[in-house]
Amino acid sequence: MRIALCGGTGDIGEALALRWAYHTSHEILVGSRDPERARGKAEEYETELDSRGVDAEVKGFANEMAADRADVVVLAVPAYHLVDTVEAIADRLDEDTVVVTPAVGMKRDDAGLHYNPPGAGSVAALCADAVPEGVPLVGAFHNLAAGRLADLDADVEWDTLVFGDDPDAKDIVSLLAEEIAGLRALDAGGLANASEVESVTALLINVAANNDGLHDLGVRFQ
Amino acid sequence: MRIALCGGTGDIGEALALRWAYHTSHEILVGSRDPERARGKAEEYETELDSRGVDAEVKGFANEMAADRADVVVLAVPAYHLVDTVEAIADRLDEDTVVVTPAVGMKRDDAGLHYNPPGAGSVAALCADAVPEGVPLVGAFHNLAAGRLADLDADVEWDTLVFGDDPDAKDIVSLLAEEIAGLRALDAGGLANASEVESVTALLINVAANNDGLHDLGVRFQ
Repeated sequence: MRIALCGGTGDIGEALALRWAYHTSHEILVGSRDPERARGKAEEYETELDSRGVDAEVKGFANEMAADRADVVVLAVPAYHLVDTVEAIADRLDEDTVVVTPAVGMKRDDAGLHYNPPGAGSVAALCADAVPEGVPLVGAFHNLAAGRLADLDADVEWDTLVFGDDPDAKDIVSLLAEEIAGLRALDAGGLANASEVESVTALLINVAANNDGLHDLGVRFQ
Repeated sequence: MRIALCGGTGDIGEALALRWAYHTSHEILVGSRDPERARGKAEEYETELDSRGVDAEVKGFANEMAADRADVVVLAVPAYHLVDTVEAIADRLDEDTVVVTPAVGMKRDDAGLHYNPPGAGSVAALCADAVPEGVPLVGAFHNLAAGRLADLDADVEWDTLVFGDDPDAKDIVSLLAEEIAGLRALDAGGLANASEVESVTALLINVAANNDGLHDLGVRFQ
């Protein structure tokens, strides 16, 4: 399968690119607004993988070129770039391309981080309004500490919550998630359940900030 | 220590009453609007504990009498009864009584359960507005599956998130939480962080509803 990581030069994009390249044989396409930057990061990822004896081919492209080639497009961009990014790639998407949103909206005050959904009610709802009609949209990979996931020496035992209104698309994303060692995909229901999933990210960061010895947290439901 | 469970005849009240009576020597006071009902449930809990060889004394009272005697008062009532309950016990509270709110606000639609905070922003904020000035308020015990916790044969390995603006009160509640086998108390910061904690309950229920083999879930941060 071909997986495009639009915004694949950022934290969660890097983590997913490295993990999929390390644990699977999927073709990884790193996307960026700046194709030179995408190619540079793709080379970095290849070097990192090569140092571990993994001969993976990771390619860098402009976001729209990465999306054009992909079966699954992960919008690994900050929430405030989400709509711009979708608009840039929209004419490369069709009903056979699964779009994945891991983005969350947060704001910081003196007490810590808080979930700060856009007017649409959730980042996923904002994304659903932006993607072309008929393109399946799935939410996943929100509640993962990107830095720890990008460290291929780190063991994780985390759940990722997968939601959306297209069951087949959710299944594809869940399988991709579970190909990453230590990740379990759990079904969190439809797009209407997005905000409860997205808000966990702020909580994870607050808990890490307030408890000695805990950092780079994920979550396990048990 | 004397712990009053106002609404201690309900699900989470029963779970906490049984667990503290089982694992600790704290004095457990079951409160209800109806003192007869409180006494009946307290006897039920004693019988359950006796059947396991634990000779605990659990007493039932009207909520205000339970609160009057207690060092820690847990408001184990549904969110829509919270203000009424605080008003009923308000003149029994003082700055030496730690008040604990485990309540969450939820609404159901076709997709599942959703966090539905009151106008104050969180149930804890609503509670903070209702308790008398100077009474320390702590949020805890929101994200626990009450039915499973009430089953003394069930092993749990869960975190409970403790938040509030009074560090000493938080410490007291955290210690009480960790006296329950399998519970770890994590500091989630101040009252301003309440909504991200409260919203997890709806998520736990949605995840249990959508995944075969998962039910009565709690959460572990790792």
